[in-house]
Amino acid sequence: MYEKILIATDGSAASMNSSRSGIKLAKSLGSEVLVLYVINEMAISRVIASMIGRGFRQEDLRRALKASAEKVVSEVTKMGEAAGVRVEPIIKEGDPASRILETAEIEGVDLILMGSHGEGGISSKLIGSVAEKVLNWSTAPVMIVR
Amino acid sequence: MYEKILIATDGSAASMNSSRSGIKLAKSLGSEVLVLYVINEMAISRVIASMIGRGFRQEDLRRALKASAEKVVSEVTKMGEAAGVRVEPIIKEGDPASRILETAEIEGVDLILMGSHGEGGISSKLIGSVAEKVLNWSTAPVMIVR
Repeated sequence: MYEKILIATDGSAASMNSSRSGIKLAKSLGSEVLVLYVINEMAISRVIASMIGRGFRQEDLRRALKASAEKVVSEVTKMGEAAGVRVEPIIKEGDPASRILETAEIEGVDLILMGSHGEGGISSKLIGSVAEKVLNWSTAPVMIVR
Repeated sequence: MYEKILIATDGSAASMNSSRSGIKLAKSLGSEVLVLYVINEMAISRVIASMIGRGFRQEDLRRALKASAEKVVSEVTKMGEAAGVRVEPIIKEGDPASRILETAEIEGVDLILMGSHGEGGISSKLIGSVAEKVLNWSTAPVMIVR
């Protein structure tokens, strides 16, 4: 059951925590794992806008974001290796919720696992907007780990 | 992992579907299952209010609701028996989300599993209000099954 689990992460402490749960679950169920990091397009645009005219180079930002994404997915991949779980890393750019849903669809995953909050942090006890969108639109079961 | 799974159900087709997934997951993980049906206090009050002065007896309604709750939890218990999973049935009365959260806390469950919509039906693709509240307030992971 749950042969292909999609773990969505953004590198936040909470989401690394939920990634650990995902790997553990995959190990128990013998599932394959895809780990997805979405570089948030809107966030990039905002940073770029704030840096215009300050001698800032767009490609440096993109390179730094890419490197940070790679670091996160490689951490989860290593968690998988340590547990004997096959993990395929995926990095995309765009709106996080849309890319998560799209990836789940394309890859035919049968469970999406994600944290309740991303980098935006915890506002009271409410779940984050990305988790909410994924919950609202996913046809596959979604597991939210705090 | 996930030694004690709480399956919340209200007997709707969607929630029986998610109960089936919960039993399957519990079987794969060797988990114990609690199945909880909450008789919705608000709904009872509304029905009673609408029946006042029509020769209607409150205790008949309560008895009917209790019987219907028992039927649902016994169905899930039977699913468990068929799969070799230990299922403990629980029936409570009150606000569904509050009772689900309270039960998870008291029983120390490490995963709550529920449908995206209860008897209220499916309004577009949005998740139901009970699922939303549980997601917002649960400290345990929550799995939403459509």
